[in-house]
Amino acid sequence: MHVLIIGAAGMVGRKLAERLAKNGQINGKTISKATLHDVVEPSAPANCPFPCTTVASDYSLPGEAEKLVAGHPDMIFHLAAIVSGEAEQNFDLGYRINCDGTWQLFEAIRAINTETKGAYHPRVVFTSSIAVFGAPFPPAIGDEFFTTPLTSYGTQKAIGELLLADYTRKGFFDGIGIRLPTICVRPGKPNKAASGFFSNILREPLAGHEAVLPVEDTVRHWHASPRSAVGFLVHAAEIDGEKVGPRRNLSMPGLSATVGEQIDALRRVAGDKVVARIKRVPDPAIIKIVSGWAERCDPQRAIALGFVAEKNFDEIIRAHIEDELNGQIA
Amino acid sequence: MHVLIIGAAGMVGRKLAERLAKNGQINGKTISKATLHDVVEPSAPANCPFPCTTVASDYSLPGEAEKLVAGHPDMIFHLAAIVSGEAEQNFDLGYRINCDGTWQLFEAIRAINTETKGAYHPRVVFTSSIAVFGAPFPPAIGDEFFTTPLTSYGTQKAIGELLLADYTRKGFFDGIGIRLPTICVRPGKPNKAASGFFSNILREPLAGHEAVLPVEDTVRHWHASPRSAVGFLVHAAEIDGEKVGPRRNLSMPGLSATVGEQIDALRRVAGDKVVARIKRVPDPAIIKIVSGWAERCDPQRAIALGFVAEKNFDEIIRAHIEDELNGQIA
Repeated sequence: MHVLIIGAAGMVGRKLAERLAKNGQINGKTISKATLHDVVEPSAPANCPFPCTTVASDYSLPGEAEKLVAGHPDMIFHLAAIVSGEAEQNFDLGYRINCDGTWQLFEAIRAINTETKGAYHPRVVFTSSIAVFGAPFPPAIGDEFFTTPLTSYGTQKAIGELLLADYTRKGFFDGIGIRLPTICVRPGKPNKAASGFFSNILREPLAGHEAVLPVEDTVRHWHASPRSAVGFLVHAAEIDGEKVGPRRNLSMPGLSATVGEQIDALRRVAGDKVVARIKRVPDPAIIKIVSGWAERCDPQRAIALGFVAEKNFDEIIRAHIEDELNGQIA
Repeated sequence: MHVLIIGAAGMVGRKLAERLAKNGQINGKTISKATLHDVVEPSAPANCPFPCTTVASDYSLPGEAEKLVAGHPDMIFHLAAIVSGEAEQNFDLGYRINCDGTWQLFEAIRAINTETKGAYHPRVVFTSSIAVFGAPFPPAIGDEFFTTPLTSYGTQKAIGELLLADYTRKGFFDGIGIRLPTICVRPGKPNKAASGFFSNILREPLAGHEAVLPVEDTVRHWHASPRSAVGFLVHAAEIDGEKVGPRRNLSMPGLSATVGEQIDALRRVAGDKVVARIKRVPDPAIIKIVSGWAERCDPQRAIALGFVAEKNFDEIIRAHIEDELNGQIA
């Protein structure tokens, strides 16, 4: 099996490549090679049992998507995206990469599907986001709730979902779209994304650094760990498409928790000394942005289809300590 | 006020131009001129109190959308579309006209909005369709039901809705999307669209001709008259955008009726002799297609915003007799 990961230099893409290198197979089929693509050259995972080709290009430019699928990859993970904040600031770039790029990719696959009279029919796993939803929300967002995004990023992801479902219905490929919760604990350095504090207040104190909490403890949000996100991607690659039916886009399971519950979990796992590194500095701008975000999904379909996330924030924090800190708390 | 109608040669577009010619104004503002556009040259309405320019072009080709909005029309009705059956058969054409064409139009408006620093900010009324929904449905499709179209046409309309909402949110124009029910009684000749029989079984008998009914009398569907469709468009042009809020796409009111109820109304309005011209010839292909269609919407938002449709099928039939048959039944 030939695997293509588009967006392989991002945090989730890197972890996905590592997981695939560890597993060596998808659905019992040995991975014979992988192509790792991003706008900057991705690195291949260590100790990889199959050959990895790394490619850097702008996949939205004419001809580039065609090059990516010219080798007829059997499994395509499409994770490439301009993130929410940047897509909001740079309207043209967001639409070009998230909307037009996705469409170009789907068109490139369709061209080979048509040329081979349907013999080429890869699974395409597309990462969407809960940003396809826009406030006001019901207490829990059900599987049939409408997509009225309040950002260009959410709009672009919702368009990608529609295209994925239609190209799948027409038989051009076999797509599964997964709406990721906010990823927490996101590794790396603090960033200025409005959602950054959800991770910052756990990651930084665990590493011995102070972190700023800009909102009230009562703010509730919808989370999953990087480990779960990779698990969703692998499960989406392995799932029986017949069982999914024509509604190809699924809200993923996650954990609904308040900031207070995050901090309580941090205290249980790491103690008061670590929690004391969180500094409360209310930021009205962030408070306003976050008030429009989804608090909870009720992803019954995904759960019935076997997607699994953490059950409590202690698990999310322990996964971070294991995966990112070699088990050591500062 | 300068009005642009894109798709002005279609049935609804023609009737809209006639209504505007009769009204002479929108929201109390006198219409100073109109541009009527379609892929074939539209005809100007008779006795029109304002000058009409008619234009034929493919608005999806590079530079054509720019030409249409170069005159800074204050009110843009976007009705252009490849219809459902054709979009399903001709995938490329459907996406080019319904999806890319709509996007090109919105981009052309955005370019002038940006160039004029926001001074150019037209109302854009976009005709969407209940085809954005896909079975299985709840007994009545509520305003927050998700869009999982089962046709490329429905997908393209859903993408248009998302773009409309995002371009409106960003302040590039002031868009309202209206999801039309199936239009009944559609004037003209019988066509081979799967939905054609809903109109054929009324229009043809009223004109003295036989009509074929290919489904059971129990089939239920969601209807509005051409007169109501034009009313929706005019109301969407006049409505206060502030009251609509960020959710810019609205399912229109309509009438949920079974084929049996349609026929009962025909009998009340036109008598047994006319009803006897309906011939029952079951068609398994049409029965299957129709079984996936929406039976009823519950468009509470549109009703609260003042959109009005017929209350019973007698009204729909009487409107057809008045508007298309000069009051005469054959």
